[in-house]
Amino acid sequence: MFGGIKLVNGQFKRISQVAIVVKNIEKARADWAKLLGVKENPIMETEGWEVTHMTFKGKPSKAKAKLTFFQFENITLELIEPVGDPSTWQQFGDKKGEGIHHIAFNVEDLDGTLETFRKSGIGVEQKGDYKGGCYVYMDSAGKLGGTIELLFNRKE
Amino acid sequence: MFGGIKLVNGQFKRISQVAIVVKNIEKARADWAKLLGVKENPIMETEGWEVTHMTFKGKPSKAKAKLTFFQFENITLELIEPVGDPSTWQQFGDKKGEGIHHIAFNVEDLDGTLETFRKSGIGVEQKGDYKGGCYVYMDSAGKLGGTIELLFNRKE
Repeated sequence: MFGGIKLVNGQFKRISQVAIVVKNIEKARADWAKLLGVKENPIMETEGWEVTHMTFKGKPSKAKAKLTFFQFENITLELIEPVGDPSTWQQFGDKKGEGIHHIAFNVEDLDGTLETFRKSGIGVEQKGDYKGGCYVYMDSAGKLGGTIELLFNRKE
Repeated sequence: MFGGIKLVNGQFKRISQVAIVVKNIEKARADWAKLLGVKENPIMETEGWEVTHMTFKGKPSKAKAKLTFFQFENITLELIEPVGDPSTWQQFGDKKGEGIHHIAFNVEDLDGTLETFRKSGIGVEQKGDYKGGCYVYMDSAGKLGGTIELLFNRKE
């Protein structure tokens, strides 16, 4: 079926993550763990604004999210429960209900990748820091049909 | 961040595909190809009912879809434009608009995997044949937050 299809290369060669917005992360984690036959991983909450400096649509937001992960051989599945205040997670949940929210790329040259998006007319929807790196959600749903997250880990 | 998280193993060890429902596949394909810096792959249309024997929610459906693919190092991205009649693709588009519709697993033991889902209280939403195999969309959105597709290639 995929004979003759060329591999995507360069900065976008690998999709590192696919993420689902859920209403109740404890319940969703239990249902996923049962189906997959694996133990549940911990649930973590994103940090406070003094760490994240998060902005959503250009404005500071104190929104948080509860997160948990399932690690497959080739990709990570993330579950996200929005917590308070406006965010891409909360807005998606309000508009569309539970659903697959984004795919993520790990990037090595964040400025270069943002410039690639800018040339496609796609800007930033939300961004924030975490210990050791930052994430950027691109405002890509209108053009590409779904949200793209960029993950950038600072080199020590 | 993922230290100590155990890999999912067995029948679900690898997510083979992530798929986006779009309104206009030619436009979405062009926008994705521009962003990714790759050539566009062909658009194909699913075959007629005499090949697919497709059912949606237990009833025969002559719905089709236009499909195209981008192949990453670790996963395939599929774009889907629903064509006519009721289907999981058309219903998703009508209810939620464009968005990430499903993740897929390639399975070697389809009956065993369907039984695993049955034990989690998850049945079949849509299924159909293609040359060399078949696909099954599980009715998993309510429990897991998103649709899961099973892909089964018959051995020659």
